[in-house]
Amino acid sequence: MNNFTFCSPTYFVFGKDEENNVGKYVKRFGGTKVLIHYGGGSVVRSGLLDRVKASLQREGIGFVELGGVKPNPRDSLVYEGIALCKAEQVDFVLAVGGGSTIDSAKAIALGAVYDGDFWDFYSGKFVEKALPVATVLTIAAAGSEGSTGSVITKEEGLLKRSTDSDALRPVFSILNPALTQTLPAYQTACGVTDIMAHLFERYFTNTKDVEVTDRVIEGLLMTMIHEAPKVIENPNDYEARANIMWAGMLAHNNCCGVGRDQDWSSHDLEHELSALYDCAHGAGLAVVFPAWMEYTMRHDVMRFAQVASRVWGCAMDYQHPERTAKAGIHAFRAFLRSIGMPQTLAELGGKAEDIPYLAHTAAYGNGNSGTMGGFVILQEEDMANIYRLML
Amino acid sequence: MNNFTFCSPTYFVFGKDEENNVGKYVKRFGGTKVLIHYGGGSVVRSGLLDRVKASLQREGIGFVELGGVKPNPRDSLVYEGIALCKAEQVDFVLAVGGGSTIDSAKAIALGAVYDGDFWDFYSGKFVEKALPVATVLTIAAAGSEGSTGSVITKEEGLLKRSTDSDALRPVFSILNPALTQTLPAYQTACGVTDIMAHLFERYFTNTKDVEVTDRVIEGLLMTMIHEAPKVIENPNDYEARANIMWAGMLAHNNCCGVGRDQDWSSHDLEHELSALYDCAHGAGLAVVFPAWMEYTMRHDVMRFAQVASRVWGCAMDYQHPERTAKAGIHAFRAFLRSIGMPQTLAELGGKAEDIPYLAHTAAYGNGNSGTMGGFVILQEEDMANIYRLML
Repeated sequence: MNNFTFCSPTYFVFGKDEENNVGKYVKRFGGTKVLIHYGGGSVVRSGLLDRVKASLQREGIGFVELGGVKPNPRDSLVYEGIALCKAEQVDFVLAVGGGSTIDSAKAIALGAVYDGDFWDFYSGKFVEKALPVATVLTIAAAGSEGSTGSVITKEEGLLKRSTDSDALRPVFSILNPALTQTLPAYQTACGVTDIMAHLFERYFTNTKDVEVTDRVIEGLLMTMIHEAPKVIENPNDYEARANIMWAGMLAHNNCCGVGRDQDWSSHDLEHELSALYDCAHGAGLAVVFPAWMEYTMRHDVMRFAQVASRVWGCAMDYQHPERTAKAGIHAFRAFLRSIGMPQTLAELGGKAEDIPYLAHTAAYGNGNSGTMGGFVILQEEDMANIYRLML
Repeated sequence: MNNFTFCSPTYFVFGKDEENNVGKYVKRFGGTKVLIHYGGGSVVRSGLLDRVKASLQREGIGFVELGGVKPNPRDSLVYEGIALCKAEQVDFVLAVGGGSTIDSAKAIALGAVYDGDFWDFYSGKFVEKALPVATVLTIAAAGSEGSTGSVITKEEGLLKRSTDSDALRPVFSILNPALTQTLPAYQTACGVTDIMAHLFERYFTNTKDVEVTDRVIEGLLMTMIHEAPKVIENPNDYEARANIMWAGMLAHNNCCGVGRDQDWSSHDLEHELSALYDCAHGAGLAVVFPAWMEYTMRHDVMRFAQVASRVWGCAMDYQHPERTAKAGIHAFRAFLRSIGMPQTLAELGGKAEDIPYLAHTAAYGNGNSGTMGGFVILQEEDMANIYRLML
């Protein structure tokens, strides 16, 4: 196990109706003038936005609003939010929505206390400070409600970049599983895939003797496999939604990633797909991750056999462990198909002739270094080979 | 799943040699005059105390010392520590040791900012504030390095009582697994038992649909089963020590207990044993917990069958699930025996004729209400029956 530090100070408030207490928590964490940031549509239609505002009003907390966040959130709205915060002397950013809204809120929060261009922090500058961010989560997927990260897309050139800092961990996050019940099956399945991907990115490691994090990751993967079919069948299954929602937070606040190297190639390969085809991140991951597994399996067959046996219940073939390893990848594909996820590049709108561009951009676009990955280091040719496995 | 709140803000610093950075972290968390609190013996002999002092000195941080903490830490030393803190204007308490030292440090920290008798907080008063506490952990067991709790024994009447508050969560904890390598096999096994007991107390619940926490608990139990025999065989196995140490923190910072009712009868029943026989807490738990399981198994046979099958690898007997449930308890007993833990009251120095006293004290001593437990509510007669199963 590697040396590590870990601190997850977010105050989590979990359960039914808890969004009605949001004003109380904003007050406890020192907010006096709030930017409420959201996407639109369902947050407004469901009455959630009204409940949030009513809760702030009960505590006498002032607020301004900025809606309109889109999936793969854009820099233009971030600039607008920063200007609004500065003009209105906002001291607290409240995201009401899913990962895109939270990531956009984090970008606004760091930009609101910075004199230069906020994009500096998405180009390598370290985030020292930001306004406090809090969340009312409506989608179980990105884990941004408990994480240090934020991903923003620059409209000019569709540059998708991320930043990471303890200053961006939400001070509190309200997780009411009932708020996710209105999510359509496809988006629910995208969220499930994203959560499982966050676990697999940490699972595939070259660090030895990491039984404790292996076991926690495996437990969370089994939770997803157990609970996801229930919500696909019955979107109103509160209990299954609750298990998925909490697993989604644990999958990405890095409690599963401490003390071990991680991979993250699949996320990097997927970013090119959602940038080019504007597909949902989870759907892109459903296509990328099994292909990446097939391609890298020989690097550590026993690790793949372990997850196949422990998580997917595949019988261990002691004479041919690679058969068990393959059976695990097959089980993952079958599971993704069963919850309605795509399997091929074509289903995302991609074509074979895009592959050289995808691989070259993944390798060298956006200032990338030419290689990616922590478990297996991939070159441009490997990336192209993996994209070809998605045909 | 029940509604819940969860916040674990402790900054964990994990790995080899990290105790040499303790001064840096004390400074970061605002300490200027430190009480170093410890037991004695090994902390001094191993040179750990000197390394801690040197690190504080490098940062120019002043300190006073108070050693002498004993297992089942006593109120007399707490009073001494409080007086020392007040006299020396200490603003930070640093525990160097295991759970007893940390619990004693927490008691000193809350007493140092209180004008009355610190025992008030162990008699029901809520802890609103305390000096910041930090730890350099030397034993993987109690989980006090990441928890809100503290248990102190009043010498007059050997009254063992606890308190609980977010104000008592350590601000940082340094976990260097190498520091636990000098621990004798018996104490190591006591720690392993305590960690597993913290997991089981949370596992046995009447709350339904808690797959996510079930799975995390099961993963941590399997980690203990996988790693403990390695350290019993080879005390210098750093990697196994590391997995156990981190599992010990996760077992008791309550990430495994959120959203579900918990039991805690076994801890309450054990407290009477360590109070009367002055046995190690882990050894007492090794005797109590399997007996409690046997006694309560019929309350929810399928939950016992689940843990038997998922954790202990017992084959599920679908026609007679109670056979699987029993096989799990049997496997737990066999595991405890294999790491050198006692099985009977006699091995702890107890006798059958003590049982009426033990049960009566457990039920009504120390202001107890007459019943205990969250999974199965036990009356005095049940407690006596469970103690009899330990003969």
